[in-house]
Amino acid sequence: MNIADVYALLKPQVAEIEQEIQSNLTSRVRRVQEVGEYIFQSGGKRIRPLLVLLTSKLCGGDERRAIKIGGIIEYIHTATLLHDDVIDEACVRRGRDSANFKFGNEMVILVGDYLYSKAFQVLVADGDPRVQKTLSDVTTLMSEGEVFQLVKSFDFSVTLEDYFQIIEHKTAILIAACAKCGGYTAPDLSEEMADALWDFGYNIGMAFQLIDDILDYMGDASTLGKTIGTDLKEGKMTIPVIKLRDLASEEEKDRLEKLIEQQMIPTAEDLSFVIGLMDTYDIRRHSMDVAYSFLDKARKAAEVLPAGIYRDCLHVVADYVINRQL
Amino acid sequence: MNIADVYALLKPQVAEIEQEIQSNLTSRVRRVQEVGEYIFQSGGKRIRPLLVLLTSKLCGGDERRAIKIGGIIEYIHTATLLHDDVIDEACVRRGRDSANFKFGNEMVILVGDYLYSKAFQVLVADGDPRVQKTLSDVTTLMSEGEVFQLVKSFDFSVTLEDYFQIIEHKTAILIAACAKCGGYTAPDLSEEMADALWDFGYNIGMAFQLIDDILDYMGDASTLGKTIGTDLKEGKMTIPVIKLRDLASEEEKDRLEKLIEQQMIPTAEDLSFVIGLMDTYDIRRHSMDVAYSFLDKARKAAEVLPAGIYRDCLHVVADYVINRQL
Repeated sequence: MNIADVYALLKPQVAEIEQEIQSNLTSRVRRVQEVGEYIFQSGGKRIRPLLVLLTSKLCGGDERRAIKIGGIIEYIHTATLLHDDVIDEACVRRGRDSANFKFGNEMVILVGDYLYSKAFQVLVADGDPRVQKTLSDVTTLMSEGEVFQLVKSFDFSVTLEDYFQIIEHKTAILIAACAKCGGYTAPDLSEEMADALWDFGYNIGMAFQLIDDILDYMGDASTLGKTIGTDLKEGKMTIPVIKLRDLASEEEKDRLEKLIEQQMIPTAEDLSFVIGLMDTYDIRRHSMDVAYSFLDKARKAAEVLPAGIYRDCLHVVADYVINRQL
Repeated sequence: MNIADVYALLKPQVAEIEQEIQSNLTSRVRRVQEVGEYIFQSGGKRIRPLLVLLTSKLCGGDERRAIKIGGIIEYIHTATLLHDDVIDEACVRRGRDSANFKFGNEMVILVGDYLYSKAFQVLVADGDPRVQKTLSDVTTLMSEGEVFQLVKSFDFSVTLEDYFQIIEHKTAILIAACAKCGGYTAPDLSEEMADALWDFGYNIGMAFQLIDDILDYMGDASTLGKTIGTDLKEGKMTIPVIKLRDLASEEEKDRLEKLIEQQMIPTAEDLSFVIGLMDTYDIRRHSMDVAYSFLDKARKAAEVLPAGIYRDCLHVVADYVINRQL
């Protein structure tokens, strides 16, 4: 079984998630709908709603609610992407003009706010206090994490712990929330199951962001639909640079430090220098090892979940996270 | 009784609202707290939490909950101000450097997101589905309204109905929500009372924004703590310009239209031209008449509320809205 089989298995439900996403975009203000449709039509794998569906199925949950919650989480995720794109002055997202490039920063900030509010509106209508608490806690931590990431930009001294905290807040906890909230659509989810779902999602999420950060230096720009080296440009200390800093010679480290802290756009030569060094010190392998360690933890967490087709699907998702676009 | 007497009457509770606002700023990420404290220490009259308190008291509600909900609403209000300031590229807010000017747009977008999320977190903890629904509906409409306002910027043909819709979403419905949610802190609030509270708040809110928009052309810059003519600069068609457009000669109208639609910063001469015309056509009176008509509706809505000290306070708030800084 591979990821395409998982999508095929849940084809009608995945289609309903798309419908759910579309239907909540309906607004009296035409431009809201227009910008919203542009954003959501740009694709995206809907891996978060898929996870909600899978864990809901796994626990014998209410499919209709899983679809609603999946839509909510995709809105929250998209709102953070929109605000990130404004902050990073991104011009490209998923291989097309980014929304801020096309509609302007002002519009994109506001449509981001709309998606947040709409998500909470649907969350209130769903009415499950556990789901509400999980998601409002997670979005609060996410915004704190974004501030922390911004504070740590262009700072060469970022520790591995700082970095883990950043990606935890930025990515892992929302994916953990997907897995847990899917479980909450079932009546009487045990604490033990809820924790196992959270741990599974959390560790998948950590691996997911690690891979993303590795691909930023070592991916294929044409399949990624984005440019290489954007994290370097934005002064973000991610796993490859942290590993490189810890292995490079003093001289190399000095040049790398200047590149990160100068707050200037690195030249093509700078980028080749960094990527060359990463090659020399086998940074890809070192970084992948970290990603694999989180994946192992995810697999371990899945052991307590009920065996069967849906648990198999979760393992496929885990494999997909680590193998995508590499 | 004047507004100072109202604040004096509720002095301990108003102090608790400040504490509530401060306590929810506590964050592991120091910068979040720092930016938050800067924003909330810049004053503000806390008119929204005050209204929650007053209507809670009026209906015999739970004071502790009113304080919590007041804090939530102040967070939502502040989040919209922060994002507005980024959009309007404002440099001044309440007589000081605006937060975006001091901390940068990126930080301010994220701290706005933090305040939204935190508000929903407290809202979930409060656990009242009616309050949750009211506030999530209102914030969704607010963000749609902001988009509508942006779409209508630099558009000379904005109708009075468009304008009313904009200020309704931007200001009136959040103030309406304050009045209603204060009532919801009481056990068994009747539908009739809930509607009357909403209508009172809504009409106060409409008058409030009308006065704000009038002051933007005719206020005293030193007491307002902001500059005159910013709406003209931002191409916002507000009540004074709409009234002026409808009364001016063809020639004057042409020049006004160019000023609005050119998307260039108006010169001092442009601004004097507009303010001079407003004087000629008695625009202040015409605009104030509109504000008074909403205030009358607010007073009428208050008639069905239980008589006593707290209803008197609501009337004082209504008077204050119309008389402030004029």
